[in-house]
Amino acid sequence: MMSLTRIVRIEWRHCDPAGIVYYPRYFSIFDTSTTYLFEKALGMNKFDFLKHYDFFGYPMVDTRARFFIPTRFGDDLEMITTVTEIKRSSFSIEHHLMRNGQLAVEAFETRVWVGQDPDSPEKMKAKPIPQEVIERLSRA
Amino acid sequence: MMSLTRIVRIEWRHCDPAGIVYYPRYFSIFDTSTTYLFEKALGMNKFDFLKHYDFFGYPMVDTRARFFIPTRFGDDLEMITTVTEIKRSSFSIEHHLMRNGQLAVEAFETRVWVGQDPDSPEKMKAKPIPQEVIERLSRA
Amino acid sequence: MMSLTRIVRIEWRHCDPAGIVYYPRYFSIFDTSTTYLFEKALGMNKFDFLKHYDFFGYPMVDTRARFFIPTRFGDDLEMITTVTEIKRSSFSIEHHLMRNGQLAVEAFETRVWVGQDPDSPEKMKAKPIPQEVIERLSRA
Amino acid sequence: MMSLTRIVRIEWRHCDPAGIVYYPRYFSIFDTSTTYLFEKALGMNKFDFLKHYDFFGYPMVDTRARFFIPTRFGDDLEMITTVTEIKRSSFSIEHHLMRNGQLAVEAFETRVWVGQDPDSPEKMKAKPIPQEVIERLSRA
Repeated sequence: MMSLTRIVRIEWRHCDPAGIVYYPRYFSIFDTSTTYLFEKALGMNKFDFLKHYDFFGYPMVDTRARFFIPTRFGDDLEMITTVTEIKRSSFSIEHHLMRNGQLAVEAFETRVWVGQDPDSPEKMKAKPIPQEVIERLSRA
Repeated sequence: MMSLTRIVRIEWRHCDPAGIVYYPRYFSIFDTSTTYLFEKALGMNKFDFLKHYDFFGYPMVDTRARFFIPTRFGDDLEMITTVTEIKRSSFSIEHHLMRNGQLAVEAFETRVWVGQDPDSPEKMKAKPIPQEVIERLSRA
Repeated sequence: MMSLTRIVRIEWRHCDPAGIVYYPRYFSIFDTSTTYLFEKALGMNKFDFLKHYDFFGYPMVDTRARFFIPTRFGDDLEMITTVTEIKRSSFSIEHHLMRNGQLAVEAFETRVWVGQDPDSPEKMKAKPIPQEVIERLSRA
Repeated sequence: MMSLTRIVRIEWRHCDPAGIVYYPRYFSIFDTSTTYLFEKALGMNKFDFLKHYDFFGYPMVDTRARFFIPTRFGDDLEMITTVTEIKRSSFSIEHHLMRNGQLAVEAFETRVWVGQDPDSPEKMKAKPIPQEVIERLSRA
């Protein structure tokens, strides 16, 4: 399955008065990595792949995160994001953030592929993930 | 156990280009409700209760959220936050967000009570939750 | 001109490792107050008034903020938001945040009323502010 | 004077339901660039230079931003950040964000160098900027 590794710098803006990352901001970091993984797999940025595959996005349906080591501004974390499962209209991702070789945070997420609801153009509805996307996300 | 109900207005700033809440922002909403629940239980704002009980905060160790119904700016959600378990130095909370009487989002969180590490003043360490705090969080 | 006063509670999530509001978050507070002022003037929430007047929003073109007194979590600020000028397709707003009766922050903003560009449906274009909106924003 | 150029990718998380950057998030981008400029000038990350020069940070006292061209997720902006003035205990910075060679956003900021107030250890007070810092920020 597709995987992406990047270095994440923890910034002042991520941190709270205790001097550590305010945990809701990790979820933005996770989401950005999921997008980067898609961009790597599909060879387009998100603006373009939403148009190309004519869909609205992949909203979250279920996510869990566990925090083992606090991180503070100035830390450079190694982040590994991996596709773990692809179903008809949903997929699962795992994120691991490493601080000096130790697991600092891990997260799991399941998202659904959605597009316009044909019966109600203002609403969104789960759609089958295009076969080409499934194949590209399935590559090592 | 202590519980808190409030109305959460979804604002423009919470939403993404798909017009729905960008899910990481729900976690700020959860965190704020946990703080309000503590403020209700302890009769002080967070600035004051951190001082009064001489601790650094209650960082997240494990959290999960499930999203059933998308919400968009202008929505008024009913939010119920409840203490579900209190251990020696950790506690668990549940949040339910209702949209028009239907469950839109639910979240679980386990946090740890931390203070200054006596061996390393710059670090933080789990501490026993004060008995008075346990009693106040345990009230209906 | 229309004016709105509200109490803004500074939360943990607004603050940085120095323990004071991370200044970019003031701009979300300003933006929310501008929306509340419009909601008061127009008698609808933002979701509804964007539809009712068929426009995309009022993006910022020019804003300035000056910070006189630092604020920290737990502070309750009195915030006064006032329309100061309305032109054909733009308007100006002032925000004052008071801490214990003293001016903590003041901000100025000029925004433009935009809708769909008839020549390019994906783009937005400045539009005249509807006369009814001008009249409602002009009321004391 | 010291200057820094970097590429800023506009992400989904920066954007609002109108599909463009929610303007308060530009200020986080500005703040991060100011920090990167200091890190370049001082040869240390922010965590280390706050300790090395024994100060609390450089809170904003006055900032203005003007927005000429809307930007949307997927855009890569060229960002140039430059020191424009250094006084005894304050300094000014300018940011320019270019989209396809055109000025999209410009911002001005004046910040103050603060440290612990000797009369009240919980408070902060303006301090003279260390001569070494002034010299390093003054280099081309």
